[in-house]
Amino acid sequence: MKKIINRSTDVVTQLLNGINFAYADILERVPKTGIILSKVQPQAVAVISGGGTGHEPAHSGYVGENMLAASINGPIFIPPTVAEIVQTIQLVDKGQGVLLIVKNFEADVTNFLAAEKLAQGAGHQVAHIIVNDDCSIDKETFKKRRRGVAGTVFVHKILSGAAAAGQTLKELTLLGEQVVMSLNTLGLAVAPGTLPGESAPQFQLGESEISFGIGIHGEAGYREEPISHSEKLANELINKLKSQYQLKQGSQLALLINGLGGTTALELMIFANDVRRLLELDGIDVQFKKVGNFMTSLNMAGVSLTFLEIKDPQWLTYLQLPVSAYGW
Amino acid sequence: MKKIINRSTDVVTQLLNGINFAYADILERVPKTGIILSKVQPQAVAVISGGGTGHEPAHSGYVGENMLAASINGPIFIPPTVAEIVQTIQLVDKGQGVLLIVKNFEADVTNFLAAEKLAQGAGHQVAHIIVNDDCSIDKETFKKRRRGVAGTVFVHKILSGAAAAGQTLKELTLLGEQVVMSLNTLGLAVAPGTLPGESAPQFQLGESEISFGIGIHGEAGYREEPISHSEKLANELINKLKSQYQLKQGSQLALLINGLGGTTALELMIFANDVRRLLELDGIDVQFKKVGNFMTSLNMAGVSLTFLEIKDPQWLTYLQLPVSAYGW
Repeated sequence: MKKIINRSTDVVTQLLNGINFAYADILERVPKTGIILSKVQPQAVAVISGGGTGHEPAHSGYVGENMLAASINGPIFIPPTVAEIVQTIQLVDKGQGVLLIVKNFEADVTNFLAAEKLAQGAGHQVAHIIVNDDCSIDKETFKKRRRGVAGTVFVHKILSGAAAAGQTLKELTLLGEQVVMSLNTLGLAVAPGTLPGESAPQFQLGESEISFGIGIHGEAGYREEPISHSEKLANELINKLKSQYQLKQGSQLALLINGLGGTTALELMIFANDVRRLLELDGIDVQFKKVGNFMTSLNMAGVSLTFLEIKDPQWLTYLQLPVSAYGW
Repeated sequence: MKKIINRSTDVVTQLLNGINFAYADILERVPKTGIILSKVQPQAVAVISGGGTGHEPAHSGYVGENMLAASINGPIFIPPTVAEIVQTIQLVDKGQGVLLIVKNFEADVTNFLAAEKLAQGAGHQVAHIIVNDDCSIDKETFKKRRRGVAGTVFVHKILSGAAAAGQTLKELTLLGEQVVMSLNTLGLAVAPGTLPGESAPQFQLGESEISFGIGIHGEAGYREEPISHSEKLANELINKLKSQYQLKQGSQLALLINGLGGTTALELMIFANDVRRLLELDGIDVQFKKVGNFMTSLNMAGVSLTFLEIKDPQWLTYLQLPVSAYGW
């Protein structure tokens, strides 16, 4: 697999230096770390997030004014260390406390919660929100997997907006829990991704097959089938997502239509148009939508669809608040 | 090649409907046409552009406040009809005239200039700028090809900014000519793209080969060679671009680092970091930079690098002016 990189051991450092160069007006890399800080650090609760790299523009693309105060970036698909998370908390805490947004993967949760405990021991007010929007199922156990995937971006946006509006750490934690309970995502892969420096793709898919319910680190889906029309793919994702809610005429949704890295903007827009038509037929009111690459998985081709049922009009206000973050 | 589409004959209509849905707050599709209008239409010279689709986010991603008044979108890689260009001129002319930004491909120039003439006959003030930033060479004739490629986006931005600042059609034409003379782009492909509904890629590249000097419609490059490190690729593009200028210590550049559709954000940032380092060694002052997918060629993997030598500080002001256009 041909990639535009230098040595595969340098990928993350050079990625972060590239981001630091491209967005020098809004971001600043803390040298020799995976920490990216917003240049604007208002007096408010600092909302921070992070995880492995390979999900660009996540997570650094959500750092900026009215958005995350910092992101902490680990190796590709590997969470940052406890020490760097603690260091970040120390850097961004302005005395009102720090909220960690964590995607529900075992290694991420372990590191972020260990850091939270250490930082609390050092006198910081810290809380966390665990995002578990993935409603795909494990094909072995038929249990929902509830990983944290693209919907995390809505959690970044709403909680950062609420923090900018002056909410306390306790209020933000409650709001985050409510948002996460209304949030579901389901994805499909058209082609697997490849780790930089490796030649084999992360999983196997037949020449004309797709996989429903894949994760963002190359985790297998729940069903493979021949690729079909965009409209049929949209229909499967919408039906599975709708089954997570009691939507009725007049229910309000925010949508995130997310490319997984190797899918063109042209395809994303065609898929978005199918989602629009199908939801119109259902009488569902789409109050907010974003279409683009928000939480990718290297060069995996495919899309994910996220529903957020808007339970409070304030959530919409926070979604619509202008931000400087480059990935939004 | 697996793509998320419906029928290949519906691709362009559904793409434009998807864009119309995703960006309903800033854009409006004129039904049954390839015309996308900005919802904000100030009293000023209307700057418009267009071409074939397949280059997303170009051209609709550059329509909005302080940006293009409209884009006219043809079939994939095929320019819009004369009739639709004339219709667009009629829709956007507020009495101060209309400026057409045209990429230097024969079919594009033919259609836009025929439309200009027809619209002038109908009483509109119309002028055009032909963008020919591609400084690659034809490997048969060793002549520069001077097609219009990614640098066109800087022309959109600067001329739209100047129009918003109240420049006349005549002033804008002069400014456009100056900007185009300072603008050069060179690209390389790592993997070819595939037209929707087709299975064969647009050109052939060996398993570990890249091609320098490719166009944005699958046109062949001037040299194939084994893929190398990002730094070496950056060095070749920079050296070829520098040879177009008399740059010296203190020369000011604006950079556009453009992904061609199938290259990940991770690779683009690593490449951007190499460009930064190499230009620093040369003592060249990068006053402005953009890194992302701006002018793609379906799912072709690769990058292009654009230099604009800043001859007038006003150009920077126009580059920095905030816009609502979604592709910027």
